[in-house]
Order: sequence, then C-alpha cells, then structure tokens
Amino acid sequence: MTAATAIRRLNAADPDFARHLDHLLSWESVSDDAVNQRVLEIIQAVRTRGDAALVEFTQRFDGLEVAAMADLILPRERLELALTRITAEQRAALETAAERVRRYHEKQKQDSWSYTEADGTVLGQQVTPLDRAGLYVPGGKASYPSSVLMNAIPAKVAGVPEVVMVVPTPRGEINEIVLAAAAIAGVDRVFTIGGAQAVAALAYGTESVPPVDKIVGPGNIYVATAKRHVFGKVGIDMIAGPSEILVVCDGQTDPDWIAMDLFSQAEHDEDAQAILVSPDAAFLDRVAASIEKLLPTLEREAIARVSMSTRGALIQVADMAQAIEVANRIAPEHLELSVENPQQWLPQIRHAGAIFMGRYTAEALGDYCAGPNHVLPTSGTARYSSPLGVYDFQKRSSIIHCSADGASELGKVASVLARGESLTAHARSAEYRIKN
Amino acid sequence: MTAATAIRRLNAADPDFARHLDHLLSWESVSDDAVNQRVLEIIQAVRTRGDAALVEFTQRFDGLEVAAMADLILPRERLELALTRITAEQRAALETAAERVRRYHEKQKQDSWSYTEADGTVLGQQVTPLDRAGLYVPGGKASYPSSVLMNAIPAKVAGVPEVVMVVPTPRGEINEIVLAAAAIAGVDRVFTIGGAQAVAALAYGTESVPPVDKIVGPGNIYVATAKRHVFGKVGIDMIAGPSEILVVCDGQTDPDWIAMDLFSQAEHDEDAQAILVSPDAAFLDRVAASIEKLLPTLEREAIARVSMSTRGALIQVADMAQAIEVANRIAPEHLELSVENPQQWLPQIRHAGAIFMGRYTAEALGDYCAGPNHVLPTSGTARYSSPLGVYDFQKRSSIIHCSADGASELGKVASVLARGESLTAHARSAEYRIKN
Repeated sequence: MTAATAIRRLNAADPDFARHLDHLLSWESVSDDAVNQRVLEIIQAVRTRGDAALVEFTQRFDGLEVAAMADLILPRERLELALTRITAEQRAALETAAERVRRYHEKQKQDSWSYTEADGTVLGQQVTPLDRAGLYVPGGKASYPSSVLMNAIPAKVAGVPEVVMVVPTPRGEINEIVLAAAAIAGVDRVFTIGGAQAVAALAYGTESVPPVDKIVGPGNIYVATAKRHVFGKVGIDMIAGPSEILVVCDGQTDPDWIAMDLFSQAEHDEDAQAILVSPDAAFLDRVAASIEKLLPTLEREAIARVSMSTRGALIQVADMAQAIEVANRIAPEHLELSVENPQQWLPQIRHAGAIFMGRYTAEALGDYCAGPNHVLPTSGTARYSSPLGVYDFQKRSSIIHCSADGASELGKVASVLARGESLTAHARSAEYRIKN
Repeated sequence: MTAATAIRRLNAADPDFARHLDHLLSWESVSDDAVNQRVLEIIQAVRTRGDAALVEFTQRFDGLEVAAMADLILPRERLELALTRITAEQRAALETAAERVRRYHEKQKQDSWSYTEADGTVLGQQVTPLDRAGLYVPGGKASYPSSVLMNAIPAKVAGVPEVVMVVPTPRGEINEIVLAAAAIAGVDRVFTIGGAQAVAALAYGTESVPPVDKIVGPGNIYVATAKRHVFGKVGIDMIAGPSEILVVCDGQTDPDWIAMDLFSQAEHDEDAQAILVSPDAAFLDRVAASIEKLLPTLEREAIARVSMSTRGALIQVADMAQAIEVANRIAPEHLELSVENPQQWLPQIRHAGAIFMGRYTAEALGDYCAGPNHVLPTSGTARYSSPLGVYDFQKRSSIIHCSADGASELGKVASVLARGESLTAHARSAEYRIKN
C-alpha cells in the first residue's frame, strides 16, 4: 500500500477545495426507525414495570442470570474493593488524574451574585447544583475509566449531592478500573444495568433506581437514542459524533509524533476523523511516510487504517493564516497547534473544543490527565457549544426583589409595554404597585 | 359560577396530595406525525431550493404577494423608521427596559482565564462569542417586542457580531413596536419570513439568509418542531412549554394583587398554569373571591378562565416550610414569594427559573423591564436548566499548553491509563514526549 492510498491529500489552493472539505467533514448520524421503535418500547416498559423490566432486559441483553434487582446494585464498599484489585501504578495514575481534573474544574465553579440599585431594588442570580446526576458508562470494550473521572468529577465539584452511575456488565464482566475510578471520583451509587433500559430508569426512576435531573456520558446507538427521547424529562449532555483531531503543524515537529497524534484519534473507531494541516508540502510527505511506517505497528491497525483512509486528510495551505482559517471552518473537537510560539495564533482561534498548544502537548494528555474535560463538542458543534464542565451541573435562578419605590417606577414602564402587547392582566398586575 | 368551579383547591395534608399534584403538573407536548412530516418537507425544500422556496412558502403560508427574496428583507433603516412610528411613551419604555436588561446581562459575561503550574504548563479556558445568532419572532397576535429585547440583548452583550432576526408579516401586517425593539436591541438584519421555512433558512442558509450558529426565540408548533429537527446542525434554546407561575403567600398581601398576578400567567394561553400556595386557608378563600370578582373584568377573560379552571390551583399547606417544599417539587418557571422577609426563604429554594421577592415584585415587572431575562425554563426543567443568558451566546475552548517537563510527567500518567483502556496509540503518542 502506498502513501497515496493510506490518506488523502488536499490543497487549499485547489479551486474546489471548499467543496472537498465540506464533503470530507460531512457527517449525519443515521436515525433508524427500528432502533427508535425498540427504544420507545423499552422506555415504556421501564416506566410501567420498573425494576421487573430492568431485571428482564438485563437478563436478555447482557446475558446475566439475575434473580432480582438487588443483584444489580453495587454498594460503595464494592467500589472501594476495586481500588485494591488494580495495580498500584494504575491507582496512582487514576488519583493523579482525578486530582488534576478536580483542580481545573474548581475554576469553573460559578457563584451567586447580586447588586442593589439606588431605590433599594435588588437584582441577582442564585446558582445551585442539580439535586442528582446520572452517569452512563458503557460496558465491555468501550468501558473507559477516564470517562468516569471526566463525567463524575465536574458534578461533584458543582456540589451535586448524589451521583448515580450505571454500567452494564455483559456476561458478568466487571471492569475493576472503572469501579476504582468511580470510587476515586466520589460516585455515590452504582447499578450494573445498561442500554436504553438504564437511561429510562435514570430518567423516570424505578423502585430501586432514583430518578435523576440530568444524564451524562457516552453510549451506543440505543443509549444515544434513549437520551434523545428522555430529553425534556431530564437534561442530557450532548449526543456525540465520532471523535476528531485537527493538527496544525509548521513542519518542525517530528513527523512520527504527528502521525501518532493522528492515530490517537483514528484508533477510536472507523468513523473517527484525523486531519493534518501544514503550509509545508515536504513535511506532509514526511508525515505520510510516517503513517505508512507506523500503521502496521498499531494494535488497533485495522480500525485506524479505515479511519485514516476514509475520513483522514493531509491538507496543504499557503501559510499559517490560512491554516487558522481552515481550523475555524472545521471547528474541531481537538485542535493541536504543533507550532513555534502557538500563543500568537490563539486569539484567532474562534471555534474548537480543546486547544493543545505547542509540540509537547499531545492530545492524549488531555484525554487522561491534563485537567480539562475530555467530553468535547464534535462535528463542528464547537461553533456553539462547550466542553462538559461544572456549569453543566449548576443552574441559575434570577432574583428580583423590588423596593416599593422600584416597583412603582418599573410598574409604569411595564404597564406601557404590556398594553402594547395587549396583555392587560400583566399591565394591571404591575399597575397595582404604582404609587399614587 | 362559584369559587369552587373557577379554580380547584388542594390541601397538602390530604394523603393523596402528591398524586393530585403530579396530575396537576403533568404535561407532555404532543408530537404530531403530520406536523413532523410537513416540517421535514419544508426543511428539505429550503435546503435544496433556497430563496425560491422561501418566497414560495411565504406566499402560501403568509398570504403575501412577493415577487422575490428582496421583498422579504428589511434594511436597518426600516427599523430606525419604526422608532419614529411608535409613541414617545412606548419608545421611552422600550429604551428603559433595554437599558436595564443590558445592565443586568453585563454581569453574566464570562471571561477567559488561565493558570500556570510550577513546571510551566498553562491550563485555561478561552471564552468566545458565537459568530452569528438567529432570533425567531412570531408574527401576528403573539408578536412581543419584549421578546425581541430579551433574546437579542444577551447575544449582543456576549459580543455576537451579527444577530439576524426573522419575523413573519402575515397578510402584510408589520408590528412597528417589534421593529423598534429590534432597532434598540441592535439587531443587524431582519427577514420577514416565518414558520419552519425561516428556521430552516437560519440553520442551513440560502442565497440571501446567512446560516447562523444558534437559533433562539419562541414560536408555534411548526417552529418548535423545526427547531428540534435542525438541532445539532445549529444550537437552539429550549423548547418551551406553557408559561407558569407559582405564588407563595403568607396571607398578608392584598388578595386582588395575588389574583391579578395569577391572571398575568393565565391570560397567556389556555394551557398556562397559575398556582397559589398559602398556609392561610381564609386567605385562599379571599383570593378565590377576588378571582371570581376580577375574572369578568379581564380583556382576555375567556383564555384566563379556561387556564384557571383546568390548570390552576389554590393549595393549602401547614406552614411556610411546606410551601417551600411544594415550590421545590414544582420547580416553577416563575416563583413569587409574596411574604414578609422573603430573604429568609431564598437559600431553601433549590429550583426556579426566576424568583420574585416580596409583595411589590409582580411577576410582570420581570417580563418587561426589571432586568433579568423573561425566557425561563418551564415544566419543571428549572431542575436542570437556567434562564436564557449571555452564557447561551458564549462558548468555551479548553487550553492546554504543556511545558517539556509537564508533558514528560503527564505522559507517564496518560500512558498507564491509556494502556489500561487498550488505547495504545494514545499511550505511544504520550510516551514520545517522556524524557529519558
């Protein structure tokens, strides 16, 4: 296989470049009627039959012999036990990561505020945590302890009193590192259920599972579809698309480093997207060669190869200014600025989930332990949305406390505007408070 | 008609109270297959035929004779003209309201931050405004100038360079106060289109309408359905349910005031919900009498009467503590604490869109001019969401800039965790940065 077949090359000078780029980025998640129907049935069953439905679905879908809901509850002690079953190195790594994630997220915490006007009227905003958050953790192969930290810690920093985690254990497989991460992150309760049934249980509650206010965390198409359906009853985080990285390089970073950075997205799944932009054509050649050389050495070669060849690209641009333009057009989940003096470009970056500055900041560091969250907006949604954060587990209430004088003056303004909208009960309610 | 028929009475001491309350609050929006199908067709037509489809739909649905898209564009000068066509009193009221809304929302603005660790690693968050926001304003009867202020001003305070407004003008009806509000709020461009076609145009763009990053503002079932469908391509604000007010009163406020405060929600539409909670049974009787007395005096009596009788309630509780419990259970859009010393209860309010403190703070003041936003979470969603605010028009990018030393140390941690997840390209990408 030659370099040309492993990954496509684009040039921003090509008159058709914008169209090619649009095509490369295009991604619409398929909404399958059969999946929708199945998920709606599962939600209905959990709403009407509660625990009994959970036990039944878990037997059927996870191949588990469970007699009753009690078999699907892990007490806090079981999480603590997991801490003793992983290696000391793993435990230390989890603890370091958790500590860094906690420290970063503390900075996101928002406080209530208020101000008093001359007439004594007080205006403000009261910030409060959610009462209870639900965390979905996939089972089996895609079960990531790092996701437990990234989803649970912001909730705890926000002050959420109860974080409930669900994680399926297909055929009884328990991931001890996931449970250890839950213990470290401060998860309060764990149920070993998964799929649409777990989402339904968190949204509506059952005899055993308490209803939560918001459900976060990644999952397969059944989980994502269920989250869409329960949205409104509870809050949800984003529905994530495939993971992406955009590396902007000035041509001075080791091409093997850049190739491996691209692979660190490409190995996630075949739809993942890894793109490199550089003004240096010869460097793009060198990275293409590194890709060829290193692909066969990857444990997840098959996945990475499909991802690189179907959704990857090496893009040549005229200069760094054009590279930044391309980055803003893509609004990538992960943006690596593998360049000299990355600070000079930062103010021009308008849209990106997370920005990895300089040659040393591998995207993988952000996935695990740098501190910022690894749950990030995908598929260009960084144009209008943000990383998962403490702010996702806090909400605000406006505070208005009018003095008698303030209500009288504001009443006059409200009266005029309400009458302009023909809402006369509004007007009269305000007018009662106008002083004679 | 007797008091008993105008509004229902509940008592929290009733053993069935929780069930009655659940029933009273229950609200599920109907998702109509026919509407869905129609909206999907309209979106598809606008995506493929652009302006031509907009002209066609506007002729058909708004009964407008328009030859071309140019007839559906209002230049900034037309907005300025509207300022001269409303009364001086109206203009002054709009300007006062806008100024107060602006001042309050300035406090919500979030700034970028960063911190440097001992080894030189920099972590932070870059806050940026959306590039372009779209504001939907309903035409005809439900065309509210106050909504223009409440939706456009937070976007402008956030620093959004371009705010695009769409407002249908059925049979050519133009609401001059709406255009004047747009001029005052700083709206940049106005298109006189509406319905699902306007939402589709804002989401995907046409030859004339620029695509936006987020669409906000209220609308009918077609608009709400279209917003649901374009969500993901662009951001949207909430899909609002019927408006609600919960008044908690200690029995010492004028019962006419309280009745009119309840009506100020009830007059919105027949599904609106107005509830009063008080520990004073005799006071509930007095309010019931005021309701009877005042209902016939309302311009929108018919609507208010249906709303009060089908969704309203007077709830008797044992004491203020129980009143607050009920408030937290309901998580109301608007909560009026019409009591002596409301501050003492504030820390116990966990969920409410906006809190109106004391006897003078009529909810209507908040609808128009107090300062806080009137776009608020409905149907109990205040449990996990917030008023519309500047934060809805800003987004965050995580910043990670590792020093060589920082990358080396973090690389060791990331390597252990990545290998624990069998993501070895992640591990190797991090390991390249570990110093020997």
